[in-house]
Amino acid sequence: MSNKNAPIETARHSLSHIMAAAVKKLYPDVKLGIGPAIENGFYYDYDFSDARITPEDLAKIEKEMQAIIKQNIDFIKKEISQGEAEKLFANEPYKLELIKEFTDTRCLRAPDIGRLTLYQSGDFVDLCAGPHIENTSEINTKAFKLTKIAGAYWRGDEKRPMLTRVYGLAFESEKELIDYLQMMEEAEKRDHRKLGKELDLFLIDPTVGMGLAMWQPKGAMLWRIMEDFWYQEHLKNGYELVRTPHIGSRKLWETSGHWGFYNESMYPPLEVSQTLKEQQDGKKSEIKEEYLLKPMNCPFHVVLYNSKPKSYRDLPIRWAECGTVYRYEKSGELSGLTRVRGFTQDDAHIICTKEQVKDELKRVADFIIFILNTFGFKEFNVYLSLRDPNNKEKYAGNDEGWEFTQKILEEVAKEQKLDYKKQEGEAAFYGPKLDYKIKDCLSREWQCSTLQFDFNLPERFDMSFTNQKGERERPYVLHRALFGSFERFIGVLIEHYAGAFPVWLSPIQAIVLPIGQDHQKYGQEVLDLLKQNNIRAILNLDNETIGKKIREAEMQKIPYILVVGDKEISAKSVAVRQRGAGDKGAMTIDKFIATIKEEIINKK
Amino acid sequence: MSNKNAPIETARHSLSHIMAAAVKKLYPDVKLGIGPAIENGFYYDYDFSDARITPEDLAKIEKEMQAIIKQNIDFIKKEISQGEAEKLFANEPYKLELIKEFTDTRCLRAPDIGRLTLYQSGDFVDLCAGPHIENTSEINTKAFKLTKIAGAYWRGDEKRPMLTRVYGLAFESEKELIDYLQMMEEAEKRDHRKLGKELDLFLIDPTVGMGLAMWQPKGAMLWRIMEDFWYQEHLKNGYELVRTPHIGSRKLWETSGHWGFYNESMYPPLEVSQTLKEQQDGKKSEIKEEYLLKPMNCPFHVVLYNSKPKSYRDLPIRWAECGTVYRYEKSGELSGLTRVRGFTQDDAHIICTKEQVKDELKRVADFIIFILNTFGFKEFNVYLSLRDPNNKEKYAGNDEGWEFTQKILEEVAKEQKLDYKKQEGEAAFYGPKLDYKIKDCLSREWQCSTLQFDFNLPERFDMSFTNQKGERERPYVLHRALFGSFERFIGVLIEHYAGAFPVWLSPIQAIVLPIGQDHQKYGQEVLDLLKQNNIRAILNLDNETIGKKIREAEMQKIPYILVVGDKEISAKSVAVRQRGAGDKGAMTIDKFIATIKEEIINKK
Repeated sequence: MSNKNAPIETARHSLSHIMAAAVKKLYPDVKLGIGPAIENGFYYDYDFSDARITPEDLAKIEKEMQAIIKQNIDFIKKEISQGEAEKLFANEPYKLELIKEFTDTRCLRAPDIGRLTLYQSGDFVDLCAGPHIENTSEINTKAFKLTKIAGAYWRGDEKRPMLTRVYGLAFESEKELIDYLQMMEEAEKRDHRKLGKELDLFLIDPTVGMGLAMWQPKGAMLWRIMEDFWYQEHLKNGYELVRTPHIGSRKLWETSGHWGFYNESMYPPLEVSQTLKEQQDGKKSEIKEEYLLKPMNCPFHVVLYNSKPKSYRDLPIRWAECGTVYRYEKSGELSGLTRVRGFTQDDAHIICTKEQVKDELKRVADFIIFILNTFGFKEFNVYLSLRDPNNKEKYAGNDEGWEFTQKILEEVAKEQKLDYKKQEGEAAFYGPKLDYKIKDCLSREWQCSTLQFDFNLPERFDMSFTNQKGERERPYVLHRALFGSFERFIGVLIEHYAGAFPVWLSPIQAIVLPIGQDHQKYGQEVLDLLKQNNIRAILNLDNETIGKKIREAEMQKIPYILVVGDKEISAKSVAVRQRGAGDKGAMTIDKFIATIKEEIINKK
Repeated sequence: MSNKNAPIETARHSLSHIMAAAVKKLYPDVKLGIGPAIENGFYYDYDFSDARITPEDLAKIEKEMQAIIKQNIDFIKKEISQGEAEKLFANEPYKLELIKEFTDTRCLRAPDIGRLTLYQSGDFVDLCAGPHIENTSEINTKAFKLTKIAGAYWRGDEKRPMLTRVYGLAFESEKELIDYLQMMEEAEKRDHRKLGKELDLFLIDPTVGMGLAMWQPKGAMLWRIMEDFWYQEHLKNGYELVRTPHIGSRKLWETSGHWGFYNESMYPPLEVSQTLKEQQDGKKSEIKEEYLLKPMNCPFHVVLYNSKPKSYRDLPIRWAECGTVYRYEKSGELSGLTRVRGFTQDDAHIICTKEQVKDELKRVADFIIFILNTFGFKEFNVYLSLRDPNNKEKYAGNDEGWEFTQKILEEVAKEQKLDYKKQEGEAAFYGPKLDYKIKDCLSREWQCSTLQFDFNLPERFDMSFTNQKGERERPYVLHRALFGSFERFIGVLIEHYAGAFPVWLSPIQAIVLPIGQDHQKYGQEVLDLLKQNNIRAILNLDNETIGKKIREAEMQKIPYILVVGDKEISAKSVAVRQRGAGDKGAMTIDKFIATIKEEIINKK
């Protein structure tokens, strides 16, 4: 967009001034708030007083902006005193407020106290620290677009007036704009929050609490299918299950260190006390206890490990748990299922000897790829996070452990031919890690699978095993999650598939639609047969036209729609409509069952 | 025991005096505490000072008791003044303390203030309000027995001296004593807390918190098997799954009423606040929220129901969830898995029209019997709890609802030929209920399954559906649990089966034991074959004698032990030892797999 190599952010900021100039021309009474560049574009906040603008007005404003740009106006920087500024903006109450507090505001970084910077472009002048483009001719007139109107409190304070924020997009080239608009349109269609409602998968309700997802039957079924698959694969892969509570005594979290270094993200302690009445004489004593909601499963697994002495013959131990943890994220950071306050980690801890580390790592790395591929993700960005070699003292564990595990992690990443990026200083304080960000069908990255060494917990809980020489030895401990969390993974899955889950994952795999009342009995027979074959099927007996029923089933993204009428009854068949493929014609019931079963087994 | 129709409690109390007399004779320096009758027997607390008694001394004391009884001594009641009592017990410091505080103590209910009651039997005299038997000849000398020694703080106060408590059992007849001793011996062997440790099923650890069970791999596998079976059967029975978080906003629990009428059993609120930093100007605002750990799943299910308008066509709704709830039970009430602070209800809510109530009730009643039978419980005591007809105002809901549901509950109980007991006034305030207490193999009763109407939540959350006439109508809501909770049900299961779970439930179904090192490879082949057939099998390669390995496997109550040596290798067979049935001889691997699979399918 900028032909003088000004960064795109500068052009975006200048566009916000141009928009304000255009708005001021069209609505002379408007009062101006502020207008920064943002990711992909810009906005400006206006006070239209009693007037209102609608999305239809955006075209008008854009046209005015184009007219201003065509005039090839220069952006001119000026410095003035506070007094001069107050005179200049006498009719702009918001600007006057900013002038008074100018040292607090972002746009005004005048070099001398008492002097303010402003930018003039044609008739329009704004308080602003810049930088800006030199001339409006630098704007690519085909690469920007006003997109939406929203309300925004002045200075983000709900007690101050609500202003009207107008957003725009701006890129270097028209193609980028078009691509971005298409991507946004597709992303909006796929938004898991929107599809979650439309497909009746989950509910986040303020009466229960933000960031706390509740699962409607179809969502809970999807979860169950995933969990069942997960358990089966873990058992096949030599894991054992464990199961631990959602609260634990504060002491446990003090020992683990979480209460010390992680309490900002933890819910506060549950303080309970009980008065004990003693037999015989009615004397009382008091017990006080404090519990914490778990933000992690690890300390519980360690207590289970430590409950009996372990020998080298017991290792490797691979303990898996789908454990629901709670972290108090700021409300502004919450987003659908991808950022929540309660989530179920598909957690496992591997406890092993040094000799077993490499083999275990390879197994996990293979397992991650297998799981992600099964759920349709074929591309990943892998990040190998190492400690900061100049800051060794801020990490738990010793040099030997770090060097050994960092080396092996990298070896495994190489052997697996992972396209990994090395990030020095990005390790957790407790150990190095390998993070997998999956790419969905829109090439967006999602942090899901992770594999982490832990030097902290084995020390703090003094974990050990008896080695072959009969000596006590510290085991190596690995945390790993494949989905990351069920909530986020399902959120990503919904967007990846745009809610059209493959048959094996679909909560409802087939719907039977009788054409008329005379076909209901046969419809029921078909349903029963499908259910006997463990196919998740439903029957729609609503008194609607077949066309409407088909459209409803399509909206629900059910993989197979089976229409039954006179013809199908006499042929013992079903008329099959396959999602994405359309009408497949009639098929005997047996043939259909064989077909769908094949798909389910192959996880399609 | 008492031949003059004195209640057995009286004889038990008299036996505590006789024991004290015997102990005083054998240990003249002993100082006496108190000695009441208790369930099944009696105890007395002694201060032996530096002397100690061991379980071996109990026979000696019993012999002395028999000698006293043979003297046909009368129990004589006397009244004396406080001053006389202080003289009489000058050498008994604990008695002196009681005399001073006599109005507070249990044994001294003298009719006049200032007068104390005591009982004389031969040389022995004790402060006591009685009543007692008239003469020691009333004691059945074959129906009592001293059983154990324990420490007990004087007056239950840990700052006071630790006394020695000697317990005795006493019944009317020798047979009752023998039966009771045998029952106790068997119950002790079956104690789920003991077996839970021996079989490595679960762990309750004070570093995590009392009443919070953690599941070791074998226990977690048992849980998973049960849960999987439970889900499958629920899906077959027309239930859908839902899934809800473990915390919810305080407001939710205020609306449901739990915070009002149930907060004594709830953990205290989690108060969280966050400071929100707003963009632009750095001004701050604060959000305060309160959450509560859920003691029930119901309000979440109601919020899911209310999230979309419902019509009669959507009903009946049957929503099931294995939801973990937390209730703060007093520590003295906690017991293994049967009384815990965190437990997973196998919960479901049925929401239906009035017309559907009876059918739904029958389905649930059938389902309960099916589930309990499958887990080996064939006998139940059923309690039908109705409202107090003279106190109608203390219940939620209206007359019509109560009369209708009470009548239908009773009809269903009759049609199911349940041997139920009607309990007026025992209903919950929110609705009538049917409780199932299962009888285990020792005829002990355990409250597990339950079926309850709820008139409270539908009102408080204003639940409704649109009926066929297009009007809003209040649905009927039923809570039900089949196991009650996983924790308690597993606790009862462990005791019922004495840890020897039927094959389908056994976390480990078979163990392969190679006789020597030469047989390890074949052992591995057998293991692989078993696993391929979904049999939960392990292989013991420890360098131990085959005899020791068999004994270990028997201790672990593994249903099938498969020994493999030269003979088995050449015949492609396994030598089978079946738990309970002993040596079954050699069997081809295929034959064994077919046999065990048959057992698993038949849930044996």
